[in-house]
Amino acid sequence: MANPTAAVLVIGDEILSGRTRDANLNHLAVQLGEHGIDLEEARFVRDVHEQIVGAVNELRKSWDHVFTTGGIGPTHDDITADAVAAAFGAEIGVREDARSILEEHCRNLGLELNDGRLRMARIPGDALLIANSVSAAPGFSLGNVHVMAGVPKIFRAMLADKLRSIPGGSPQISRSLDLNTVESELAEPLATIADEYADLQIGSYPFRTEFRRGVSIVIKGTDKERVLSAEAEARLAFSELLAD
Amino acid sequence: MANPTAAVLVIGDEILSGRTRDANLNHLAVQLGEHGIDLEEARFVRDVHEQIVGAVNELRKSWDHVFTTGGIGPTHDDITADAVAAAFGAEIGVREDARSILEEHCRNLGLELNDGRLRMARIPGDALLIANSVSAAPGFSLGNVHVMAGVPKIFRAMLADKLRSIPGGSPQISRSLDLNTVESELAEPLATIADEYADLQIGSYPFRTEFRRGVSIVIKGTDKERVLSAEAEARLAFSELLAD
Repeated sequence: MANPTAAVLVIGDEILSGRTRDANLNHLAVQLGEHGIDLEEARFVRDVHEQIVGAVNELRKSWDHVFTTGGIGPTHDDITADAVAAAFGAEIGVREDARSILEEHCRNLGLELNDGRLRMARIPGDALLIANSVSAAPGFSLGNVHVMAGVPKIFRAMLADKLRSIPGGSPQISRSLDLNTVESELAEPLATIADEYADLQIGSYPFRTEFRRGVSIVIKGTDKERVLSAEAEARLAFSELLAD
Repeated sequence: MANPTAAVLVIGDEILSGRTRDANLNHLAVQLGEHGIDLEEARFVRDVHEQIVGAVNELRKSWDHVFTTGGIGPTHDDITADAVAAAFGAEIGVREDARSILEEHCRNLGLELNDGRLRMARIPGDALLIANSVSAAPGFSLGNVHVMAGVPKIFRAMLADKLRSIPGGSPQISRSLDLNTVESELAEPLATIADEYADLQIGSYPFRTEFRRGVSIVIKGTDKERVLSAEAEARLAFSELLAD
């Protein structure tokens, strides 16, 4: 059976303006891979209501799961929760279960539950809360859309919580060979192997370090025997080019 | 007049599978910002023909420019040129001007112009070539879609060539203040300033280093006087929280 599929929607001006670098995509990709969920698409949009609504609605219809990151904090530019509610046509307001979590957190730390903090208790309709073991304010899942924070430490904590309740598939098996050559020299024999193993993903990736350059052949799939068989065939075909 | 808008489409399995980290988005965002082009969206898709075609067609209708990176090398998994041609309904084949460039490059280096290398001379219809000062094989622009390599060094060279021929807009002016607080404490006064300066982008970004945590307020826009005025107002409103 095919693995579940997923997309990620990264929300916020700061990455698209070049001010900061994305720090969540790679972590999500690795975690989903280990969980047997195929990450098929990533989108980055600005803090613009219509853009978030449009992307959420396209992605949730195309893939089994949508993970969003960013825009669920206390300030005026945190508009993700409202946009996701709008995408589903769901009501949104301060929900008692989320409010209780924030109240307890504030009480423990001697903080005031002001309007900014209360904004983080706005949860749409019958969404399921996602636990935040770092700073309490929860994420939520509405249908197949999982709404999480953008701050990497909080994102990771929320993702770990969420993945416990999502059934995974078969983890990808991956094998790679480093070859002392350039891509142009191996394109034809590699295409022959890729044709024969059309059920696997076979890619070639040039690399360059200070001391040498070469090409990594990467063979991936969920059927371990097929992956190992393709690897053996590639090792034979490229035996004279194999790097140590 | 509003700045031109742009999207980037990053093509390839390697980032979505978690094997490698994206290395081009931040560079593109910074370069476009300096050129006065607003980067509005980024998408990452796999090496799947239909996904690339669909994304190219959506993005080219939504934004003034689309920059693609990845999938224009010599191997079987390099399918970007064909997919972009299909998105436009354009013919594609080895084009003489591109072939000449590769022939000369191979002659200079004593290499054979084999089928793999010739694949990189496949250029759709009447596309304009984009120069590659690193490894010769050109990118191309078809309509408002600019097709470039994924290898960072080559991507940067192609982007520099392309931006010379794209009219820019007004570069963004950006000012920031670091505050010794958390977002929840400044949400309300910041929202008041953001309302007053609705023509600017005003965002808040929590940060955390080994020694302290705080929030950066970032104010951006193309009208320098307005940006400086909003900054002055924020400095006044948050004077007691300003970090050194």
